[in-house]
Amino acid sequence: MKFTHFNEAGRSHMVDVSAKQDTQREAVAEGRVRMLPATLALIKEGHVRKGDVLGVAQVAGIMGAKNTWQLIPMCHPLLLTGVDIGFELDETASHIDITATVKNTGKTGVEMEALTAVSVAALTIYDMCKAADKEMVIEFVRLVAKSGGKSGCYVRSAGD
Amino acid sequence: MKFTHFNEAGRSHMVDVSAKQDTQREAVAEGRVRMLPATLALIKEGHVRKGDVLGVAQVAGIMGAKNTWQLIPMCHPLLLTGVDIGFELDETASHIDITATVKNTGKTGVEMEALTAVSVAALTIYDMCKAADKEMVIEFVRLVAKSGGKSGCYVRSAGD
Amino acid sequence: MKFTHFNEAGRSHMVDVSAKQDTQREAVAEGRVRMLPATLALIKEGHVRKGDVLGVAQVAGIMGAKNTWQLIPMCHPLLLTGVDIGFELDETASHIDITATVKNTGKTGVEMEALTAVSVAALTIYDMCKAADKEMVIEFVRLVAKSGGKSGCYVRSAGD
Amino acid sequence: MKFTHFNEAGRSHMVDVSAKQDTQREAVAEGRVRMLPATLALIKEGHVRKGDVLGVAQVAGIMGAKNTWQLIPMCHPLLLTGVDIGFELDETASHIDITATVKNTGKTGVEMEALTAVSVAALTIYDMCKAADKEMVIEFVRLVAKSGGKSGCYVRSAGD
Amino acid sequence: MKFTHFNEAGRSHMVDVSAKQDTQREAVAEGRVRMLPATLALIKEGHVRKGDVLGVAQVAGIMGAKNTWQLIPMCHPLLLTGVDIGFELDETASHIDITATVKNTGKTGVEMEALTAVSVAALTIYDMCKAADKEMVIEFVRLVAKSGGKSGCYVRSAGD
Amino acid sequence: MKFTHFNEAGRSHMVDVSAKQDTQREAVAEGRVRMLPATLALIKEGHVRKGDVLGVAQVAGIMGAKNTWQLIPMCHPLLLTGVDIGFELDETASHIDITATVKNTGKTGVEMEALTAVSVAALTIYDMCKAADKEMVIEFVRLVAKSGGKSGCYVRSAGD
Repeated sequence: MKFTHFNEAGRSHMVDVSAKQDTQREAVAEGRVRMLPATLALIKEGHVRKGDVLGVAQVAGIMGAKNTWQLIPMCHPLLLTGVDIGFELDETASHIDITATVKNTGKTGVEMEALTAVSVAALTIYDMCKAADKEMVIEFVRLVAKSGGKSGCYVRSAGD
Repeated sequence: MKFTHFNEAGRSHMVDVSAKQDTQREAVAEGRVRMLPATLALIKEGHVRKGDVLGVAQVAGIMGAKNTWQLIPMCHPLLLTGVDIGFELDETASHIDITATVKNTGKTGVEMEALTAVSVAALTIYDMCKAADKEMVIEFVRLVAKSGGKSGCYVRSAGD
Repeated sequence: MKFTHFNEAGRSHMVDVSAKQDTQREAVAEGRVRMLPATLALIKEGHVRKGDVLGVAQVAGIMGAKNTWQLIPMCHPLLLTGVDIGFELDETASHIDITATVKNTGKTGVEMEALTAVSVAALTIYDMCKAADKEMVIEFVRLVAKSGGKSGCYVRSAGD
Repeated sequence: MKFTHFNEAGRSHMVDVSAKQDTQREAVAEGRVRMLPATLALIKEGHVRKGDVLGVAQVAGIMGAKNTWQLIPMCHPLLLTGVDIGFELDETASHIDITATVKNTGKTGVEMEALTAVSVAALTIYDMCKAADKEMVIEFVRLVAKSGGKSGCYVRSAGD
Repeated sequence: MKFTHFNEAGRSHMVDVSAKQDTQREAVAEGRVRMLPATLALIKEGHVRKGDVLGVAQVAGIMGAKNTWQLIPMCHPLLLTGVDIGFELDETASHIDITATVKNTGKTGVEMEALTAVSVAALTIYDMCKAADKEMVIEFVRLVAKSGGKSGCYVRSAGD
Repeated sequence: MKFTHFNEAGRSHMVDVSAKQDTQREAVAEGRVRMLPATLALIKEGHVRKGDVLGVAQVAGIMGAKNTWQLIPMCHPLLLTGVDIGFELDETASHIDITATVKNTGKTGVEMEALTAVSVAALTIYDMCKAADKEMVIEFVRLVAKSGGKSGCYVRSAGD
């Protein structure tokens, strides 16, 4: 096991993928924002009435996915062909689960784009609600599944 | 308790802070990347020998802090006056703790900048190591302390 | 009457405002998207039920205001202290009026930021609806009022 | 007729175009900046002598076209293969007509890129001339023609 | 003599300038693009007739100055209050000298902004002329003078 | 010999490359930062012990290559498939030589991306060391070799 993101001098480089084929790829990432029950109630109420926190987070997450290659130094620029984000509110556990699905056709995968979409959406929820609740925690940001490319499909095992 | 990021029509806006004073502000955020022991060992070895994952994450996190207002839709543009990031490797629990400290002089605080710095540094660690370990999890991203501004000091209680 | 944006060699420059005082400034701009009645009806329905075109345009316009100095070559970088956008649907004339209000404290005004917010919001409405209506027209984008700075207040005369 | 930019939850998404073919595409958009005759005379004089407003607007419009996917939230990133902008000065009616032609080879069209190029060029003209004329109006920004892609050619009817 | 851009752990950080005063600052940088006499003749002809390479380089250099803090990792964000760029064509030695003057009021200086303006203007000249001349060389990019801030004035000695 | 970056009206445009084939391309550029022997000694020491100037310059140069099309007005957006940067310290002559190698598969070459990577890496070295040495000079930035595309291979002659 070794890292691919370093050259022979031990310095970081953007891995050479020139010889790779363009294939259709997809990645799914998830994350969670844990918060006070009162904060979750406000978000839920806003969605149905007015002040839609999740609508803003949705836009921010999609734009975050497109900007991934400008944020993460060694990421390759990619032409995303689809980005979708979903939110699930769990009132019992008092958190919001975020799922991002990103697609592209290219030489490298979109795992980082999906993880960045989740992170930026979570940060936006934090920003919109921080006047009411400073204790929110972003957690469990992880890759759930990917397909396409030479390494084929990956599905995270359920246990984690 | 209500959200400040919406106008009377229920639409998102960038809160009007024109009347606020410029004060010195500071925010500290933390987060964690949980990984396989073998991945952590590779990162540690790279730091001392060659292939410095954390050096790249440091640069990415600092640049991420500066770009926060372009990533998070309702964030005000700010002139950061200092950004620092620290990493602590816990080999027993097999994770890396990331701490970001951000300072500015201005009308709004730098909580989002500190949280974004942590998130982008964590995503960069994921990116640099994902060929070796797809199961890494970013977790426990939270505000630890802030000072400055009308609302004064905040320190997260130790229990969480 | 002459242009200020050129140096003595006749080349464009960013005007030197070093000697200007920081003052509170505000600018209001308006614009309009003319469309088919059926398109307007879809937007209106989406706002109350689902698929909120104007919610996305709102976010895009605010982010556009923040990015004005990166889009318009001779604009000075500014620290915006407030951005708000409003939409008014006119079903008789079949158009949407967009109003953007931008504030800052600084050496130059925010007219361009308000006009850019309107333009980006209008372009986003076009983008979200173009599958249904290619004939939309963006029109009547103009400065409505400004205050602050040496030149003082300006209010557009009603006739135009 | 319905909007394509929303998912089943009624939230905005970037439409999935993974299955679409890459085709050569072209879009032409137009717009107009209406101004005082004295302003138009200054612009015209500058072009032949010194202080070339339209030269700056040309560069800004081309760069705006390239940045469209970062400005308009649901736009797909695209590799533009050509951008050109033309200006026509009408001294009788006292306005400047802007035409932008954008080309790419890809899965989605370049209508938004052409409309953004026109808008940014128009805003730049406003910025460069606003010290002399605050009453300028940007109007008649519209798609004129497009070709390529599954929906084929579109030419705006002359009447509008 | 030691570097200020590293923290105690030996990692890069953005230097904390929170305690510094805002002062008016200015920096002047120069650089040179050496080229074939035929290339220089084309540029000169374009300036007077049509195809103004230096007009595009001027805009690019000014926008480059504004983006310096996004390009150079440890640079502080700054509010530039003036940017000007000049070109001098030396037909005997067959090169173009570029001078950039940048001003701001803030806690840190604008040396990097002036150097970046020169570099981006030089790269743009290269880009616009590379079809005619691949052998151009960018050279002698250096700080010429700076003023403002605690360290006071600096003027480069003439010998270099 | 004439410039390709202008349209028939004598205005700059992004050259239409729609009809070109996608080919694998590579470009190599070099540049140099000349400095005091004491500055070079500090950089060398930092690399082996702590405070790695070149590690930060490496990341900055790679990100600069990716952003080339946003910096240089007439550059086409490209999907880079590999970026690497190398540094060679010459203690006798007291300078650092920077070499950037950039690859893509596309319709246009990556000369500008390689030159921009070198320039941004050089500017970053300047920034990190300027507290110790203001007299550094960036010089000899030039294209060394390119391959791919219709014009085929180019290797700079050794004499220059």
